[in-house]
Amino acid sequence: MKVKSDFAYMRIAKVIEQQILSGTLRTGDKLPSLRTICREYGVSQNTALSAYYHLESKMLIETRPQSGYYVRYSKTTILSLPQITNPDASANYAHSELMVRKVYDNLGEDGHLPLALGTPANELLPIAKLNKGLMVATRELKGSGVAYDKTEGNERLRRQIARWSFAMECNFSHDEIITTSGCLNALSYCMMALTKRGDTVAMESPISFGMLQLAQVLGIKVLELPSDPQSGVDLNALEDALKDGKINVCLFISNFSNPLGSCMPDENKKQAVRLLAEYNVPLIENDLNGDVYFGQQRPKSCKTYDECGLVLWCGSVSKTLAPGYRVGWVVPGKFKDEVRRMKSYHNISSTAITQEVIAGFLETGRYENHLRKLRHTLHGNLLKFSRAIADYFPEGTMASRPQGGFIMWVELPRAIDTMELYEKSIRHKIGFAPGRIFTLQNRYENCLRLNYGLLWNEKLERDLKLLGELAKKELKRF
Amino acid sequence: MKVKSDFAYMRIAKVIEQQILSGTLRTGDKLPSLRTICREYGVSQNTALSAYYHLESKMLIETRPQSGYYVRYSKTTILSLPQITNPDASANYAHSELMVRKVYDNLGEDGHLPLALGTPANELLPIAKLNKGLMVATRELKGSGVAYDKTEGNERLRRQIARWSFAMECNFSHDEIITTSGCLNALSYCMMALTKRGDTVAMESPISFGMLQLAQVLGIKVLELPSDPQSGVDLNALEDALKDGKINVCLFISNFSNPLGSCMPDENKKQAVRLLAEYNVPLIENDLNGDVYFGQQRPKSCKTYDECGLVLWCGSVSKTLAPGYRVGWVVPGKFKDEVRRMKSYHNISSTAITQEVIAGFLETGRYENHLRKLRHTLHGNLLKFSRAIADYFPEGTMASRPQGGFIMWVELPRAIDTMELYEKSIRHKIGFAPGRIFTLQNRYENCLRLNYGLLWNEKLERDLKLLGELAKKELKRF
Repeated sequence: MKVKSDFAYMRIAKVIEQQILSGTLRTGDKLPSLRTICREYGVSQNTALSAYYHLESKMLIETRPQSGYYVRYSKTTILSLPQITNPDASANYAHSELMVRKVYDNLGEDGHLPLALGTPANELLPIAKLNKGLMVATRELKGSGVAYDKTEGNERLRRQIARWSFAMECNFSHDEIITTSGCLNALSYCMMALTKRGDTVAMESPISFGMLQLAQVLGIKVLELPSDPQSGVDLNALEDALKDGKINVCLFISNFSNPLGSCMPDENKKQAVRLLAEYNVPLIENDLNGDVYFGQQRPKSCKTYDECGLVLWCGSVSKTLAPGYRVGWVVPGKFKDEVRRMKSYHNISSTAITQEVIAGFLETGRYENHLRKLRHTLHGNLLKFSRAIADYFPEGTMASRPQGGFIMWVELPRAIDTMELYEKSIRHKIGFAPGRIFTLQNRYENCLRLNYGLLWNEKLERDLKLLGELAKKELKRF
Repeated sequence: MKVKSDFAYMRIAKVIEQQILSGTLRTGDKLPSLRTICREYGVSQNTALSAYYHLESKMLIETRPQSGYYVRYSKTTILSLPQITNPDASANYAHSELMVRKVYDNLGEDGHLPLALGTPANELLPIAKLNKGLMVATRELKGSGVAYDKTEGNERLRRQIARWSFAMECNFSHDEIITTSGCLNALSYCMMALTKRGDTVAMESPISFGMLQLAQVLGIKVLELPSDPQSGVDLNALEDALKDGKINVCLFISNFSNPLGSCMPDENKKQAVRLLAEYNVPLIENDLNGDVYFGQQRPKSCKTYDECGLVLWCGSVSKTLAPGYRVGWVVPGKFKDEVRRMKSYHNISSTAITQEVIAGFLETGRYENHLRKLRHTLHGNLLKFSRAIADYFPEGTMASRPQGGFIMWVELPRAIDTMELYEKSIRHKIGFAPGRIFTLQNRYENCLRLNYGLLWNEKLERDLKLLGELAKKELKRF
């Protein structure tokens, strides 16, 4: 049998890959045209094309229409990964609220670089198409969405969510779904349905401050579990805590977590679900980024492996289509009645018209088309951000390598306090999310979360450079 | 000084009023033309017109364009008022949830008469104008409402709410307002901000089941206070409970309550606020019907008299414009930070685009125009409903006389159980809200709530007649 790399196209691909990995070719460099490849290597056009296809599938290069092939990836972007996190076992409710408000109250201001933003920038969202969808919805939805929607939510939307769930090999019907006013609202109903004051919820660490605040306001203790920047929550730590009977409920971001960017491997998901079933502990699964994968297919969810109805799978279109529409959902498994009651008693129903617009968007090929573009842009941005961080940030800086989403986690040298760095960078109208707000403990002071879901341009690169310089200055103070 | 009734126009008006009150003239009867009045009484056209103006201002007659004057009111519609309610002092959490679901799960079905509906019917709402507003909003709102709104809510909308509050002699600025996803959602944030499990909230009785369910799901005890169908909550009972230190927070529907239809007189509002200030107990004021008054001006709110910031004034456009838009608000007084935190932690923000549409609607004269029509229709319907109940329902039936809103409370003879009546009427596709769901105690079994905010037509009259006949049949069983 002929070894694969002996094929002509593989030989060519290997050469180019080496040049990319060695840094000879850098992100954005134009590659030789197909004709040049044919001439230089003495191969057919088909073979040249196969070589480039192969490199594209490895996300090393990209095609630009009417322009040719370009390098997407380069050696220098491969930053070291942050260490697995290892928070203290006991959560201590330090006061991070003021920091959050400080960062997010500045966010709306004109001219500010919104690296702290929790969603992709407007420029990456299909606003014109959504507006058209609104017009259609006023015609197609009975009463133009002026009347109360059902508590369970728009049926057309729920049928689409069920249809899309096939991509992660889940198989639930529309009547197992309850729509909500965005994903946080879904988490809120689940938490209120499953917990009482004094209970403990286990989460990854670091974790989205929204989830910490929700637990805090409900009087729920948070157990922050050590987590790996690649594979997410540490299952051994989870098992130990379960054995000790410490956990009432879990709340994990299974795919492209916020802020680490980690994605639980399928095997881990399966194992986590099995563990939780063993201890009869429900899992609220926050899967709001799953559709924004950079690999070949959508990662599965924990819900995929749920046989006991213990997983409450939550999602939304806030990170892919329209945060301001407030359209999310939950598939609460065996807790459906409890969650439905929460929605009914706290809200009656969700906004009717925006649900209908999203239903229409999901029904056609528009969502798939949009996602394809969005993934492509976000992955490109991630590589550009990684390169900029490698080029401009202090030596020793580490960054996560998310395989999806729009959020990355950066660990600066220990001496730098990112809250102080924030105070300085905001004077230059550069905002970001300091690491300290992603925990209730005194940790992650030298970390920060960046949103790479912005429109890449020269100003953005200049601002990242400036941020890196400010960080270097902080370092010199010691 | 000449006595007013000596004026010629007053003499004529008195004669016609007598004919109406004696039942000689009945609802819907055509009145003599102005020319006939001039001839019969030997008066000028102006005098005849003044007489009809006077009767119109007393809501006894109405003009129909190109048709003439008609009787709006008749003796037989003056039903006895239900007694002041007097619930037991201790709330007992009976299980009314199944009843509520039974009634409201049927509500959406085609061909059903939705007398149980909690909002005016779609036909009374300005759907076409709101749709136009949506188109405008996609153009005027930055990012077409795709991005997250501020936690506090749409500023343009908050400025309009502040402007409209002048009508009830309140004087707060837009930055004291937080928008919410409808009024129940505002109540939910307030309750979560002010109470903890085991606390007690005082409400009128009977009271909207939504408010009971909210308290129940939060683990808050409900103290149901005796209430008068005209003037609302009994202030003596309130004072006694306050003295006993039984109340942590109050939750009143001050204007055109649900389901009684009562309206606290201004003097009662003032006194209630003074009492609560004395005992330092906050009042969550649900004022979602205040704009739908049938009298000369909008009733004031408790907030009007609030000097300590203890009143959290809640409202929405769910009963006047668009329940499905989920646009409401709260002016939380001194609890602003706490309420803002609840919204931020449970929901992030409200749907952006529907807030903008409502802001546009309130900014122009459209809202005032719409309200004028809505009030006129609702008041007319109330009179027609009252007449139909007097004509068709069992002898001894009593009904409330709301001075605004779209909800009336009907008390049937004691022997009738309205849950059983419901089972029978729903087979004829006639739904209504049985009295039992408006309390946590075993009370109001012979009562029901009707929504008169429907399109009046012959079918509706036939259905009310049928409902009356079914009630009479129930009575005969004993």
